[in-house]
Amino acid sequence: MEEKRISKAVISRLPRYYRYLGELLEDGVERISSSDLSIKMKVTASQIRQDLNNFGGFGQQGYGYNVMYLHGEIAKILGIDRPHKIIIIGAGHLGNAIANYANFERSGFIVSALFDVKSELFGKTIRGAQIYNLDELESYLKKEDIDIAALTVPKDEARAISRRLTDAGIKAIWNFAHTDLAVAAGVVVENVHLSESLMRLSYKVKSAKEDEFDI
Amino acid sequence: MEEKRISKAVISRLPRYYRYLGELLEDGVERISSSDLSIKMKVTASQIRQDLNNFGGFGQQGYGYNVMYLHGEIAKILGIDRPHKIIIIGAGHLGNAIANYANFERSGFIVSALFDVKSELFGKTIRGAQIYNLDELESYLKKEDIDIAALTVPKDEARAISRRLTDAGIKAIWNFAHTDLAVAAGVVVENVHLSESLMRLSYKVKSAKEDEFDI
Repeated sequence: MEEKRISKAVISRLPRYYRYLGELLEDGVERISSSDLSIKMKVTASQIRQDLNNFGGFGQQGYGYNVMYLHGEIAKILGIDRPHKIIIIGAGHLGNAIANYANFERSGFIVSALFDVKSELFGKTIRGAQIYNLDELESYLKKEDIDIAALTVPKDEARAISRRLTDAGIKAIWNFAHTDLAVAAGVVVENVHLSESLMRLSYKVKSAKEDEFDI
Repeated sequence: MEEKRISKAVISRLPRYYRYLGELLEDGVERISSSDLSIKMKVTASQIRQDLNNFGGFGQQGYGYNVMYLHGEIAKILGIDRPHKIIIIGAGHLGNAIANYANFERSGFIVSALFDVKSELFGKTIRGAQIYNLDELESYLKKEDIDIAALTVPKDEARAISRRLTDAGIKAIWNFAHTDLAVAAGVVVENVHLSESLMRLSYKVKSAKEDEFDI
């Protein structure tokens, strides 16, 4: 598998390429040179050429990149050339926000259902996705082929629920709970720790201020 | 400023140290050795010692780290030893979720107000923070000393609003809009691109599957 040798750093940049190429597609742009893409994305043209050469070099000298082809190839590499079904555990504010975020659908991420413990929520729907009793989680996962579970529950419940999810066959957890999950081999986790993002921002503010005083 | 020489990688790990130390504090733990912290955090003890040595080595041989002291020192480095006032632009689902996330307050991030363009929202409050007409943004920022603006608006509006914010003196933007902001020197941005996080998860799922087939 050639793709495996692609560095983590390159992979982490691919979603951003995908986003810019998607915008170019929307604007009807068919071809773009590495230097034009470089100006748009504010990275060097040589970085772009290096990154995209990892996938067999879709560009042609003096001709540029075929936007639609490159967009499609990156989609394949990221695994978003097919739809993903998501369930959301926790139908609170954050679960609601995720279920309402139409942008995900454009990349093929479809929210199938939500689960909560609050009985007043059972049977309600958010953009067509029903809220179920968390007790029904295992029976739901037996019937439905779900790719990803988003966890938006308090940290004290996150570990127990992630165990239930993986026991029921879920292989990917999008974790918003403010804790690290210990999962079995073969299960992947992507963390979104919003508090830590805020702390990084706070650090940047502080460092920028110190730079000012240095002048 | 000695702190400036600390690598980005170390800084990016500090919020996680801060979180674990906070949990230890809550559990009444006063001292912890690098090896015990290493087991809890699933990183090597030598990594922990290296990381924390950057700040003058708070640990003592055979004695361990003073949890409260280390927690406090990391807070200072991250700039969260003082409160930060936040406004949220966009009182939709995501803005609501952020305003309702009580966890931020524990680290001193206080939501002061929200702004939106929907008149039916004006005057409502979320956990004590009022929703204002976006037209009042500049006059509000003249009166109040705000540190951070969270942007939860559609991408087409994000750039214009970020310009208004920085023109009005905001130095830090927590950007949830699905676009990159171009900001003036001295303004810092921390992006939370949820779609890109989902794509990274999709890539991890795909890679894990390929690993399986390799066996």
